[in-house]
Amino acid sequence: MQAAVFHGPGDIRIENVPDPRIKDPTDAIVRITHTAICGSDLWFYRGQQEYQPGWRVGHEPMGVVEEVGSEVRHVRPGDLVLAPFAISDGTCEFCRKGLQTSCVHGTFWARELDGAQGEAVRAPFADGTLVRIPEHAKGDEKLLEALFPLTDVMGTGHHAAVCAGVAEGATCVVVGDGAVGLCAVLAAKRLGAERIIAVGHHEGRLEKAKAFGATDLVSSRDEAAAGEVIEMTKGGADHVLECVGASSSMGLAIRVTRPGGTIGYVGVPHGPAEEGLDIMGLFYANLTLRGGPAPVRAYMKELMDDVLGGTLDPSPVFDRIVDLGGVPAGYAAMDKRQALKVMVKV
Amino acid sequence: MQAAVFHGPGDIRIENVPDPRIKDPTDAIVRITHTAICGSDLWFYRGQQEYQPGWRVGHEPMGVVEEVGSEVRHVRPGDLVLAPFAISDGTCEFCRKGLQTSCVHGTFWARELDGAQGEAVRAPFADGTLVRIPEHAKGDEKLLEALFPLTDVMGTGHHAAVCAGVAEGATCVVVGDGAVGLCAVLAAKRLGAERIIAVGHHEGRLEKAKAFGATDLVSSRDEAAAGEVIEMTKGGADHVLECVGASSSMGLAIRVTRPGGTIGYVGVPHGPAEEGLDIMGLFYANLTLRGGPAPVRAYMKELMDDVLGGTLDPSPVFDRIVDLGGVPAGYAAMDKRQALKVMVKV
Repeated sequence: MQAAVFHGPGDIRIENVPDPRIKDPTDAIVRITHTAICGSDLWFYRGQQEYQPGWRVGHEPMGVVEEVGSEVRHVRPGDLVLAPFAISDGTCEFCRKGLQTSCVHGTFWARELDGAQGEAVRAPFADGTLVRIPEHAKGDEKLLEALFPLTDVMGTGHHAAVCAGVAEGATCVVVGDGAVGLCAVLAAKRLGAERIIAVGHHEGRLEKAKAFGATDLVSSRDEAAAGEVIEMTKGGADHVLECVGASSSMGLAIRVTRPGGTIGYVGVPHGPAEEGLDIMGLFYANLTLRGGPAPVRAYMKELMDDVLGGTLDPSPVFDRIVDLGGVPAGYAAMDKRQALKVMVKV
Repeated sequence: MQAAVFHGPGDIRIENVPDPRIKDPTDAIVRITHTAICGSDLWFYRGQQEYQPGWRVGHEPMGVVEEVGSEVRHVRPGDLVLAPFAISDGTCEFCRKGLQTSCVHGTFWARELDGAQGEAVRAPFADGTLVRIPEHAKGDEKLLEALFPLTDVMGTGHHAAVCAGVAEGATCVVVGDGAVGLCAVLAAKRLGAERIIAVGHHEGRLEKAKAFGATDLVSSRDEAAAGEVIEMTKGGADHVLECVGASSSMGLAIRVTRPGGTIGYVGVPHGPAEEGLDIMGLFYANLTLRGGPAPVRAYMKELMDDVLGGTLDPSPVFDRIVDLGGVPAGYAAMDKRQALKVMVKV
């Protein structure tokens, strides 16, 4: 079969790889129908994260179950399924608590496992990892495109909102206008936020934020943006959703959080890990910093119910659709910010 | 009158200073009866924090009201009062929310204001800042010594426990065996924690932790301590109280927090501000970091009720009592770790 393989920064190739096979009795084989390129894939694409040549790529799988191991109980061949970016056993202490990203047997797609940017994957812990999509969705391409972001970005935006404590009537700030930031706007709106201030750099993306429910748009760069938000909120917001992971965006998030407020952060913190975090800013204002990789699996049911019910549709975060052969160009387009997020129909 | 004055690292002197006078109609003059030297005073004493020669010192005042300004309503001359380390107006948004350390008119004792290590202070915003002690406590020296730590360390330890989410039945880890760490043990116990693991370096102090309610004592240094705590808790505790503020102690706190758990931190973060914080450790385990300067004023009533009721007595954190003339030697003793915390009876 064919799959995307990393060969070095800026060098993703589609090539022949061995077909996946059941290894453990808890495995399933899934033939991919939809996948995507993630903003976090750009870290290794840009050489900013250690990644070995030969490793597979892609962590947003949706498709049809082709085969299951002898111990798999909850999915069958022919089932339409999707999976979060985190593989989880579904039974450990953390899975039961809804923190599947800390599953004691957990791991992530790609690297030494199969990547979702390919024709098929071996899905470990199929019962814990795969989520069935109702039969009636089959063939409803518009609905499938709306469900697909539940593999990662929609659940991640939702995690930012949950971690930031967004609730009915809240005023919140979403830092970042990437796909996760836009989904965070949708999530904040869905949780009842009254005022949603979206901060970003790209006019087109901020317009999408507005369509998703943002009530105010701020397009200035960091210092000026902080000043604008502080003025608009008369001293900062109680709930700030940091959806980038850069030093500057985390710094901005800290500056615009009202004393006693909460920052929900979901962007893998590349900047702050290297350049440090303004811990004095957090400390003196008694801010709460809460976040991490989203336990997308825990949020799947409620978000899927809303998508199936027609009240949630994150699919506009995709502004380009390619086939598997278009994956390398998709990375390049996202790297150059010519595309916001690329969906791959395999 | 006499007061302690900073002249440079290692150089605190008792000298004559002008008597305090009412400046604003919301001021009161308080004659100090009890004060203390705080672990955080050691930062400037050791030259690790900018502090100007001539600045006053001490931020834990207790005493008798001598005079009040024309707008003061809630305290009268003759009242026995204490005050948190933070001065607050008592009326702003943050004071009403119980976050008096972010009071819009707020400030802190000492530096350019009067310091508590002296014969008297001018107390700004007397109605917001000063807390009356019931008349019957007058002359009951044992009770006064038990009430006095509510000015800072007991409220700060309580804030660590509240921020860490300690509740009935909790397992928690207290990092640090200084006065705040010991008070955090008391606070965790008071909030119903079932298992309290105290981590420190000093046998004598850990014994006090045990007397305060710690169920387990860990006296190893950082790496070994982390391993021990992780083993004892089979993977870390859900609630960790960081009561030091050094890089190593914060690193230890992050390592011993169970995925999805919460770190309450109250030590002014000197280390992490300079050397950085293990944000990847926080992020990947979805930890919550919450804390800051304790809004001691907000906790005053419930803690005072317990001290007056005889169920709470933090006074054993003091292991030396001096008079005002003994303040310079008190700093030296705390600096050399010959004293845990020094009380000053003026």
